[in-house]
Amino acid sequence: MRPSGRSPDMMREIGMQPGFSAHAEGSCLVKFGQTHVLVTASVEEKLPPWMRGKGEGWVTAEYGMLPRATHTRGSREAAKGKQSGRTQEIQRLIGRSLRAVTDLKALGERQITLDCDVLQADGGTRTAAISGAWVALRLALDKIHAVTPFAVDPLPVQVAAVSCGVYEGTPVLDLDYDEDSVAHTDGNFVLTSKGSLVEVQATAEGAVFEEETLLRLLRLARIGTDAIFAAQRAATGR
Amino acid sequence: MRPSGRSPDMMREIGMQPGFSAHAEGSCLVKFGQTHVLVTASVEEKLPPWMRGKGEGWVTAEYGMLPRATHTRGSREAAKGKQSGRTQEIQRLIGRSLRAVTDLKALGERQITLDCDVLQADGGTRTAAISGAWVALRLALDKIHAVTPFAVDPLPVQVAAVSCGVYEGTPVLDLDYDEDSVAHTDGNFVLTSKGSLVEVQATAEGAVFEEETLLRLLRLARIGTDAIFAAQRAATGR
Amino acid sequence: MRPSGRSPDMMREIGMQPGFSAHAEGSCLVKFGQTHVLVTASVEEKLPPWMRGKGEGWVTAEYGMLPRATHTRGSREAAKGKQSGRTQEIQRLIGRSLRAVTDLKALGERQITLDCDVLQADGGTRTAAISGAWVALRLALDKIHAVTPFAVDPLPVQVAAVSCGVYEGTPVLDLDYDEDSVAHTDGNFVLTSKGSLVEVQATAEGAVFEEETLLRLLRLARIGTDAIFAAQRAATGR
Amino acid sequence: MRPSGRSPDMMREIGMQPGFSAHAEGSCLVKFGQTHVLVTASVEEKLPPWMRGKGEGWVTAEYGMLPRATHTRGSREAAKGKQSGRTQEIQRLIGRSLRAVTDLKALGERQITLDCDVLQADGGTRTAAISGAWVALRLALDKIHAVTPFAVDPLPVQVAAVSCGVYEGTPVLDLDYDEDSVAHTDGNFVLTSKGSLVEVQATAEGAVFEEETLLRLLRLARIGTDAIFAAQRAATGR
Amino acid sequence: MRPSGRSPDMMREIGMQPGFSAHAEGSCLVKFGQTHVLVTASVEEKLPPWMRGKGEGWVTAEYGMLPRATHTRGSREAAKGKQSGRTQEIQRLIGRSLRAVTDLKALGERQITLDCDVLQADGGTRTAAISGAWVALRLALDKIHAVTPFAVDPLPVQVAAVSCGVYEGTPVLDLDYDEDSVAHTDGNFVLTSKGSLVEVQATAEGAVFEEETLLRLLRLARIGTDAIFAAQRAATGR
Amino acid sequence: MRPSGRSPDMMREIGMQPGFSAHAEGSCLVKFGQTHVLVTASVEEKLPPWMRGKGEGWVTAEYGMLPRATHTRGSREAAKGKQSGRTQEIQRLIGRSLRAVTDLKALGERQITLDCDVLQADGGTRTAAISGAWVALRLALDKIHAVTPFAVDPLPVQVAAVSCGVYEGTPVLDLDYDEDSVAHTDGNFVLTSKGSLVEVQATAEGAVFEEETLLRLLRLARIGTDAIFAAQRAATGR
Repeated sequence: MRPSGRSPDMMREIGMQPGFSAHAEGSCLVKFGQTHVLVTASVEEKLPPWMRGKGEGWVTAEYGMLPRATHTRGSREAAKGKQSGRTQEIQRLIGRSLRAVTDLKALGERQITLDCDVLQADGGTRTAAISGAWVALRLALDKIHAVTPFAVDPLPVQVAAVSCGVYEGTPVLDLDYDEDSVAHTDGNFVLTSKGSLVEVQATAEGAVFEEETLLRLLRLARIGTDAIFAAQRAATGR
Repeated sequence: MRPSGRSPDMMREIGMQPGFSAHAEGSCLVKFGQTHVLVTASVEEKLPPWMRGKGEGWVTAEYGMLPRATHTRGSREAAKGKQSGRTQEIQRLIGRSLRAVTDLKALGERQITLDCDVLQADGGTRTAAISGAWVALRLALDKIHAVTPFAVDPLPVQVAAVSCGVYEGTPVLDLDYDEDSVAHTDGNFVLTSKGSLVEVQATAEGAVFEEETLLRLLRLARIGTDAIFAAQRAATGR
Repeated sequence: MRPSGRSPDMMREIGMQPGFSAHAEGSCLVKFGQTHVLVTASVEEKLPPWMRGKGEGWVTAEYGMLPRATHTRGSREAAKGKQSGRTQEIQRLIGRSLRAVTDLKALGERQITLDCDVLQADGGTRTAAISGAWVALRLALDKIHAVTPFAVDPLPVQVAAVSCGVYEGTPVLDLDYDEDSVAHTDGNFVLTSKGSLVEVQATAEGAVFEEETLLRLLRLARIGTDAIFAAQRAATGR
Repeated sequence: MRPSGRSPDMMREIGMQPGFSAHAEGSCLVKFGQTHVLVTASVEEKLPPWMRGKGEGWVTAEYGMLPRATHTRGSREAAKGKQSGRTQEIQRLIGRSLRAVTDLKALGERQITLDCDVLQADGGTRTAAISGAWVALRLALDKIHAVTPFAVDPLPVQVAAVSCGVYEGTPVLDLDYDEDSVAHTDGNFVLTSKGSLVEVQATAEGAVFEEETLLRLLRLARIGTDAIFAAQRAATGR
Repeated sequence: MRPSGRSPDMMREIGMQPGFSAHAEGSCLVKFGQTHVLVTASVEEKLPPWMRGKGEGWVTAEYGMLPRATHTRGSREAAKGKQSGRTQEIQRLIGRSLRAVTDLKALGERQITLDCDVLQADGGTRTAAISGAWVALRLALDKIHAVTPFAVDPLPVQVAAVSCGVYEGTPVLDLDYDEDSVAHTDGNFVLTSKGSLVEVQATAEGAVFEEETLLRLLRLARIGTDAIFAAQRAATGR
Repeated sequence: MRPSGRSPDMMREIGMQPGFSAHAEGSCLVKFGQTHVLVTASVEEKLPPWMRGKGEGWVTAEYGMLPRATHTRGSREAAKGKQSGRTQEIQRLIGRSLRAVTDLKALGERQITLDCDVLQADGGTRTAAISGAWVALRLALDKIHAVTPFAVDPLPVQVAAVSCGVYEGTPVLDLDYDEDSVAHTDGNFVLTSKGSLVEVQATAEGAVFEEETLLRLLRLARIGTDAIFAAQRAATGR
């Protein structure tokens, strides 16, 4: 039995509140149960120097966690003077995942930055961030499109992510903190709404795992991302 | 006429949502109009080394702003690797203001950290932070008190803050961004619910000011903080 | 009775030694009793990128303290790898105070940096720095003027600063270290030679204060700055 | 056809030179073709504070690349003052992979640090590092064992890693730089000598991929790691 | 002819003002012509952890230069966030030089920090710093001795330093900035009052030099340090 | 008797393996006994901004040590976030030494960076680095020359370096770690193949030294560098 009482293939309640932020071109407060991440999409009509003149745009991401998003307070990265390896790993993953479904040529010479800030954490912050980032990006593109229409939609498919892992011997979907902190195998799966894979990261935590387990986790991830894709469509009116 | 249509001595709508954060001992999402600050109070039963053994506690604050809290995206301090002078100035002010109304002996040997993170900015973020921090601190103390009662309440009075300034020649209360960005004189006033002063900071921005102006701004601040005190009481059930 | 035997409204001896530094365009070793600050004004005929092309100049300040300026040695900020929040707060205040009395258009497209380095500290280093910075700036402008005359004097009024506070229940002028370290209320007042206010910062240190106290401190500050203005004029031959 | 002329399931020549470093308790210069990584294992009979008193040891890793290990010179991380996100991601992966096959209880209260420094890079530096780190760790444990025998071998199985990816539409084993820089899908697979999985990381680079591709890459990885396991045994005399 | 009109073996005017700083246990404002360095000696009755329990003391040095000590303003190291390689090289040299003549056992378990801050620079700042540091250290030891007498004087000989170099083909003593900036060979010589060598650093700047030149520069250094030793004795009443 | 059994004027075995690195324009693995340094020369046809437009090139050096190059593991400078004073001192020395024998005008507007990374340390790493850097630089210049011939050879003479010191009262050549860690006087000598001096650094470690000692050490250095010059010629086919 999972601590939350969920069945192994059950997602937590998904919340997607579009337009949470007044200033950003696109934004979404995404909730996977008690995990709450605020994602904003900021459009700049200027590219970093190394991207200019290629007729392409860029999508990048930054990630942060409020010090008391967690059960016990963590130190503030700005005060420590550097981002942890974990933070950098996550923001690189988010950026890569969104770029995998973005047509950078169709986007044109502009940069969109996806800021993912965890207001409250209960496991799965990076997968919630990716899933919410798609909504924020979609809204920002719609806003650009309303003024200067794209010839080709730069974001033709959806992307979403979910974590799966082995909790007390059973593969389960969408780990919360109580499960995540004791899971022996832990994976993050990023998929498109067409069923293709964008990123698979499965890690043994203290015990190795078998190929069958990897495949089972991937099956669960397909169930979870289908639910997220529906929530994304609802939030963006697609 | 103020851009918002408010009269010179009119506050923006004040919102105080207690318990916004699930994990923190105390928390408050404070809103001064479109300025939204999430404050959490984290209790640690351990003091920094230099405070130990004095039979006293400590209250400190940290401040941050999400990159897209503002009209245009600012860079992330954690990514830049240091907190700006402005950030440090503000978090020192918040900590000082709350300590001024806290009885550190009554608090006992524990530290409370007030994290003030600006989710959305429209002027007055530091004064909103101070005002919301009182609520978060009050709730955290109440939570401690429920388990291990204080002999003496460590927080016998309220503290609140508001900015006032001279907009187009007229002293006005609670500057929003449109006013703040062009104000010639700008002041932050921190007051107690007994009418005493905790901190006065008045600054000439491009033009000097007279003593009468300072006094007029202080009068407005009293009007504003009275409204904030009422909202604080409502939020904490006092 | 004050530790120094001064009456409540008595400044420490003011010293202003212009031209202390051989290389700087303007310089002043300013002394408020045992507080000694070396201020140099460095003129650069080049502006920071964000200031260019506006037909205006810029005045900025940096502040530092030699490690053994104080009773016990403090660590060197260059060795620690960062400036403290206190240092940044002070140098922002100095820059703001000097800009408030400088006509940046009349200055033209050049930048003047005021380096304020505390050789010896006995309370009031920031106010001594502001007061000496005016002398260094005045001398640097005179030096420019001798070669390429200004159509309009960019520095038509004087600016000076002094600290005042409540020592053992009595409002006193120009706190030295013995007073400052135990004062309950502490204020820094920046005024112009025409009697206008540039900056007022009054802070409760462990006890709140009343409006009457603020006004009394301001009265004392006017007495102190009058003495400083006279010393500035003597040092610059005005 | 692959640039190197290899067939899709062919590894580059594997070199494992044990004892390359005179001082380290264990060391190995590992070569995957033109990719050369020096790994040293340093034993400290002291744990980091947060690990003490649990009756367990710790294995950790650090990763670096000489500035001119690559085709064009990269900047030195020590001179830039920070490790890149990529470096941190890699060193976390190496540490995790070796810990997954180490019995930390059997190791006892000591820490082993695996320093992986890339002398020359031609793709696959992280997988070569993991594979060589096993040799360095094995040798270091043998050295400890010769003096103070372990009751239980802390490293009962081997771990190795290899990269696989899709080059011009064909899944291939052990990407070199020419392939890696244009591959559409790129994966790193960490396996044990018993065939279990330790870590799977598959990433879409500009194009998504299907589940069948993931499985094909995993098949190739099994072929590659079998060859590496043999080389590890030869290098350690097992 | 030297720019200053000095003969090749002529020092600049040496000034040694002991007790310049009110707080430090020992201090000296040392002048070699227009080069002015403030040295303070700070005594701590506590050693850094790695020195404790050996029955010995430690002498260390830090070096800094005010931003406008030079002809054009340099950036402030505290603001840049790190000390330059030059600064570190100089402060290591100063510490080593003073330790070479200090009996660390006789000093006992205390640390003395010599802060050398250049108020004005005209060449030879590091040699002036070493020479003035001896005075500050001597005075600090005298102050300790007056309270808790040393059984053995920890500083039985003097140490001084001077720069020599080849200016327009002629070896000259005590280079000023005009000479230093064009000298082909440049050396810093640290000697004791008994004529022994503590440190010799001779460097080709754009042209190599011969052994005879090195010996000639050393002869000049002996002339210069003799004058400095006399000034040190006068300043300390020895 | 020296720990290694060498006579006082005997070098350790010198090894110079040219072309160790596949990518660098020039490279050399230099060995002085158990001290092994990998030097690469990287040519960039672009100068740092402050060097441009002078019709000259630049030669610079960086130095690093692998964490376990030494008997006990040192911390990684990239992880600590800064280069030590020692590292900076050494890399400045290497750069200066190579520039002293390079005709920067003949080199033309390009920069060559010499990366010296210590794979294994047993005393004398900086002198081995300088000696090996000449080989790497020579090879890089030969490679440039083969494509775009130099009118004048930018490197007409050789440069080499060796350490000498006083071990148990006897001046000895080429100190290894066992000697270096207890030597009372320690010197690094950089000489050209024509017998001229480039840099002399002699330091008292806990005891002063006499002029005769300096001269004796210099004699030993000439013996040592003659052997190194021969090895350099053999390695470069000169």
